[in-house]
Amino acid sequence: MGKGGGEAVGTAGDDKEVNLAAWLVSVNTLKIQPFELPPLGPHDVRVRMKAVGICGSDVHYLKTLRCAHFVVKEPMVIGHECAGVIEEVGSEVKALAAGDRVALEPGISCWRCKHCKGGRYNLCPDMKFFATPPYHGSLANQVVHPADLCFKLPDNVSLEEGAMCEPLSVGIHACRRADVGPEKTVLIMGAGPIGLVTMLAARAFGAPRIVIVDVDEYRLSVAKSLGADEAVKVSTSVQDIDDEVMRIQEAMGAEIDVSFDCAGFSKTMSTALNATRAGGKVCLVGMGHNELTVPLTSAAAREVDIVGIFRYKDTWPLCLEFLRSGKLDVKPLITHRYGFSQKEVEEAFEVSARGGDAIKVMFNL
Amino acid sequence: MGKGGGEAVGTAGDDKEVNLAAWLVSVNTLKIQPFELPPLGPHDVRVRMKAVGICGSDVHYLKTLRCAHFVVKEPMVIGHECAGVIEEVGSEVKALAAGDRVALEPGISCWRCKHCKGGRYNLCPDMKFFATPPYHGSLANQVVHPADLCFKLPDNVSLEEGAMCEPLSVGIHACRRADVGPEKTVLIMGAGPIGLVTMLAARAFGAPRIVIVDVDEYRLSVAKSLGADEAVKVSTSVQDIDDEVMRIQEAMGAEIDVSFDCAGFSKTMSTALNATRAGGKVCLVGMGHNELTVPLTSAAAREVDIVGIFRYKDTWPLCLEFLRSGKLDVKPLITHRYGFSQKEVEEAFEVSARGGDAIKVMFNL
Amino acid sequence: MGKGGGEAVGTAGDDKEVNLAAWLVSVNTLKIQPFELPPLGPHDVRVRMKAVGICGSDVHYLKTLRCAHFVVKEPMVIGHECAGVIEEVGSEVKALAAGDRVALEPGISCWRCKHCKGGRYNLCPDMKFFATPPYHGSLANQVVHPADLCFKLPDNVSLEEGAMCEPLSVGIHACRRADVGPEKTVLIMGAGPIGLVTMLAARAFGAPRIVIVDVDEYRLSVAKSLGADEAVKVSTSVQDIDDEVMRIQEAMGAEIDVSFDCAGFSKTMSTALNATRAGGKVCLVGMGHNELTVPLTSAAAREVDIVGIFRYKDTWPLCLEFLRSGKLDVKPLITHRYGFSQKEVEEAFEVSARGGDAIKVMFNL
Amino acid sequence: MGKGGGEAVGTAGDDKEVNLAAWLVSVNTLKIQPFELPPLGPHDVRVRMKAVGICGSDVHYLKTLRCAHFVVKEPMVIGHECAGVIEEVGSEVKALAAGDRVALEPGISCWRCKHCKGGRYNLCPDMKFFATPPYHGSLANQVVHPADLCFKLPDNVSLEEGAMCEPLSVGIHACRRADVGPEKTVLIMGAGPIGLVTMLAARAFGAPRIVIVDVDEYRLSVAKSLGADEAVKVSTSVQDIDDEVMRIQEAMGAEIDVSFDCAGFSKTMSTALNATRAGGKVCLVGMGHNELTVPLTSAAAREVDIVGIFRYKDTWPLCLEFLRSGKLDVKPLITHRYGFSQKEVEEAFEVSARGGDAIKVMFNL
Repeated sequence: MGKGGGEAVGTAGDDKEVNLAAWLVSVNTLKIQPFELPPLGPHDVRVRMKAVGICGSDVHYLKTLRCAHFVVKEPMVIGHECAGVIEEVGSEVKALAAGDRVALEPGISCWRCKHCKGGRYNLCPDMKFFATPPYHGSLANQVVHPADLCFKLPDNVSLEEGAMCEPLSVGIHACRRADVGPEKTVLIMGAGPIGLVTMLAARAFGAPRIVIVDVDEYRLSVAKSLGADEAVKVSTSVQDIDDEVMRIQEAMGAEIDVSFDCAGFSKTMSTALNATRAGGKVCLVGMGHNELTVPLTSAAAREVDIVGIFRYKDTWPLCLEFLRSGKLDVKPLITHRYGFSQKEVEEAFEVSARGGDAIKVMFNL
Repeated sequence: MGKGGGEAVGTAGDDKEVNLAAWLVSVNTLKIQPFELPPLGPHDVRVRMKAVGICGSDVHYLKTLRCAHFVVKEPMVIGHECAGVIEEVGSEVKALAAGDRVALEPGISCWRCKHCKGGRYNLCPDMKFFATPPYHGSLANQVVHPADLCFKLPDNVSLEEGAMCEPLSVGIHACRRADVGPEKTVLIMGAGPIGLVTMLAARAFGAPRIVIVDVDEYRLSVAKSLGADEAVKVSTSVQDIDDEVMRIQEAMGAEIDVSFDCAGFSKTMSTALNATRAGGKVCLVGMGHNELTVPLTSAAAREVDIVGIFRYKDTWPLCLEFLRSGKLDVKPLITHRYGFSQKEVEEAFEVSARGGDAIKVMFNL
Repeated sequence: MGKGGGEAVGTAGDDKEVNLAAWLVSVNTLKIQPFELPPLGPHDVRVRMKAVGICGSDVHYLKTLRCAHFVVKEPMVIGHECAGVIEEVGSEVKALAAGDRVALEPGISCWRCKHCKGGRYNLCPDMKFFATPPYHGSLANQVVHPADLCFKLPDNVSLEEGAMCEPLSVGIHACRRADVGPEKTVLIMGAGPIGLVTMLAARAFGAPRIVIVDVDEYRLSVAKSLGADEAVKVSTSVQDIDDEVMRIQEAMGAEIDVSFDCAGFSKTMSTALNATRAGGKVCLVGMGHNELTVPLTSAAAREVDIVGIFRYKDTWPLCLEFLRSGKLDVKPLITHRYGFSQKEVEEAFEVSARGGDAIKVMFNL
Repeated sequence: MGKGGGEAVGTAGDDKEVNLAAWLVSVNTLKIQPFELPPLGPHDVRVRMKAVGICGSDVHYLKTLRCAHFVVKEPMVIGHECAGVIEEVGSEVKALAAGDRVALEPGISCWRCKHCKGGRYNLCPDMKFFATPPYHGSLANQVVHPADLCFKLPDNVSLEEGAMCEPLSVGIHACRRADVGPEKTVLIMGAGPIGLVTMLAARAFGAPRIVIVDVDEYRLSVAKSLGADEAVKVSTSVQDIDDEVMRIQEAMGAEIDVSFDCAGFSKTMSTALNATRAGGKVCLVGMGHNELTVPLTSAAAREVDIVGIFRYKDTWPLCLEFLRSGKLDVKPLITHRYGFSQKEVEEAFEVSARGGDAIKVMFNL
């Protein structure tokens, strides 16, 4: 990287090129500006970004400069769902080479804390994660990233599919946490992007039957077309959930072993808890509200376990295997595509924020 | 048993003896009356009861004729924490003999459902459980019970300790479900009888440090005397739990790996969830309210798992090993003792219902 | 059943019908003779057998009157892979009715020992298992069996496929014990009937890549046609296995996570141990020899775990789900079919014993 | 560290001091010579060694220059069981300070491979481990080591006990792998140093009953004095192990749930396999021979699992907690002590190699 040292900022692998990135500079304001790359360490690679998706959290940061307890205090490069082509590898990198197409896992953990050592590195308190302040994201021409977090794409997996490994990882981590497999029927509350990737993951893990629930007819029709066995429409206004629970159980036609609440409201979680069989599991994925009012005691007394997720760990190899083998197809989730100009970036975030028929909005750089 | 056939009811192993039991006949009314024993099956034993404890659920049935969704519709013999001496064994019983001192596991499961076959027989929907309607309990001179649910007491374990296996089993099952062991610090919310047996079990499972929390100074002092490392007094009136969470964490002096909510209210469960470390577990044991308002989403996002318990399974051998080895001492929990007369039964239930300094009230028959 | 009491033996549900069964009466001698059914208990069903397969152990009993430590001392009805149609149900049976097509799980466990209570009922020392002396088997017109061990066939699953649930269960139990799933590459040593069902099961559990190894070209071609990714031919004469291990690893093209030794010889097990990655698992399924000479210490020092199987537990529902959904097809394994006459029974066992192109020999009754 | 650069070799934190270490220079030859410390990285600490134990592998390297597949090709500093006092901390180290007494975990793993990421870092193929060629050991005045592998000693734990965490970790890892706990009786084959630490660990994990087996009367008496419930003397000459298995099972007086073979020969492993109950576990710890001839098939058919260990992972915090609480006492294992002179080093290794009454030989530096 040293050869670019003569320029003020943003040189990357080529004395002529200024590395541009989409910076979140203030509420509702993204600007494409130069982004200086850090030096390439011996175990790092430099990647030219080719596909970057917009996540709900990106939109949330744009609208509010915060997400959960993270607050954007300085301008920050946005974006963390990404794939690209390697341009340069550090001196110790052996498994990758320039020209390799890779999907990037966005979080760099410390490897010194007990979570890292114990195999749950996603819980590392010192995680450096793309576009989680104060760390920059990856909606940029190029980024520098540890080689062990860059996963080579099989020949039949596209760069866009590579970028989809990030949201898909959420579904896969949820399925692992809830122990989905060929003996577990699955209920999914919420047919938004996270509900859909969880459904695809559950199918790939072998779930024999999947029922998905939402208030929106269109979303349910998408879910059915992507493989849900049954879609059940519920209402936000209903107070007594017993009837809805019964309709959901009838749609399953079997006991419900595992439920995912991909919405995260008192009502969705109560429905999930009551619908799940004794000894089953409910995984809370959505983050609608923090405090929920739910029938926790009766769930506990039926030994219905509740598990949650924080991001994911060690999911990229499995994502790529699922995509390679065709057990899972994420391409239908990509509904909108944009180039990487100031105007297109603004428009893409607007479309993503509106929701509606936009499931995944993708940049092609 | 045939030889007693000439009498109308209640003969048991002796033509002269009428088998008496404590019948719950209506709200607040227990009556000692004859209780006809069922025939002794080939795998059954007939046990002369020697020690029977009063459980909170017994009191609840006495006051309301119901507990959770179970309703007493016909007069029912009460009691399920018990130990006695075998008087007669069925033709196929080989492991036990008349004269053996045994503790009784109260629930007979179906062994045909998937829960029974899968090793979680406590979730069997067809369980026949002492003093859970419509099945009779064991506060009686004698009962007939399957031999495989009667566990021989080691020589150094008393019949009263044998009866204590039942409440202790709740603590042991909770510790198993929450995976307590020598690497897990433990927080216990609530220092009532269930909190105390959970504490004793956690210690026996090797928990290196246990903090117990209650609103009552006396209960906390009992908990300390039984081995809690620290006791933290909290207030029912406090609305903001952050400060209490901090005081609890300071009392632990280490991360809290596992929490047991042995009270079961929104406040206790919220405290447990917030106090437990990322990746830890909270076990909901108490049943204060059904609907709880708790910060479920932030707990899920720290991968704090929530597990519950329904009774227990396969706990008697471990209870008896803990009692035999002295890793656990339940004797201090037995605070009151009564004989088996109409008057004493009434008084014993009154004392148990009042709480106060009564932890476990025991009948000696 | 009492109405048939007037006849000497073998009446079953019809005063006219004599229930016939294939009795193993001495070495190499099977005779079709009357078989008196036991009384129908309240939780039993009477099943008219329609499809019964021949297992290697049946052949072994026929040739030697023994299998492992079990010895046939009295004439015994043979057969345990079976499916049929219910003719009569006991008074307490609610989930099944006459006319239902069912597959039968052959073993009745005691439900009183710690294995049964702990969810590993296949280890029950008092198991009563079809055609394991002194218990009779199911190659008969009719049998009486507990209803909870009879599993209703989905409409699109044939009776022959129902009978195949038994051998398939071995593969499924092996896959469960070895924790096969979408993240585990699988090596299978031996392409005989057990190797093949293990392969089918591994595929249904989601194994992304399966390599199968045998000394026989024909068996390997069958394995390939049934879905093995690669088939590797090895030699019985080779002493130094390093080269074969390397060829197997190259055929996998990835680390080997799980190996099944479906042969059970020193050489196959040594190959499996050396081929499997650090931290992987080897499941010993085959029973070629008892004492094996294997590099156990180097395997242990790479934390390669060794697990074994004894029959199976709780596998029928999953078998039927795999057959229903088409994730698994056992029909190609059925290579020969026979009726239930003295001559055909003799011929069928001869064909099965010869091996060669016979994978599964099936009786249609 | 740069300030010592003016000297030829071995300066450490003080311009005057030459850092000395015990170098293995050729077969049977150890020499105390200067040892240049590497630079102190931001996450490293520099530790003054105070207690270093001699391990069997150290002796093996001294006698043969090899251990398993590791070969000493260049002079190498020996020693890896150690504790000391921190002299200097790197710029990013926050949890430790000069003056802290610490025990050192000897292996530095890569944190980039799948084993490291998956929580089994002991299987990392790129592990840099004290005194495993080509990496130097810790029998030296000072070493530089990552701070996260240095664990602060509780006030009541001595530096010698700190050094004992390393051998103890082997026992703890073995107990974890075999899932020892309050419900598991334990058999230990071999009462050498590894058998003894495994026994102490099993006790601390709550094993209710431990039987230890050896051919040597003296070792067995030590084991008894350290807490074994029963010690069984066997003979190396006996060929038929059935009688010994029976004597061992009688000594246990209960089923054997878990066995550790801390010797690693065909006979000890066969005894362990045959003695262990169906569904139990055998952990192979000892490394007597590589190829073993054992009744593997009958063990597999009783679902007796075999697990092995490679070193340990994440064990120091638990070691220190066991030592702090007194659940475990390693002090009686330290039978010989030496200073750090050329003559004493030679003598200490001789004593350690002779065995006999020497269990652990410790250097005090």
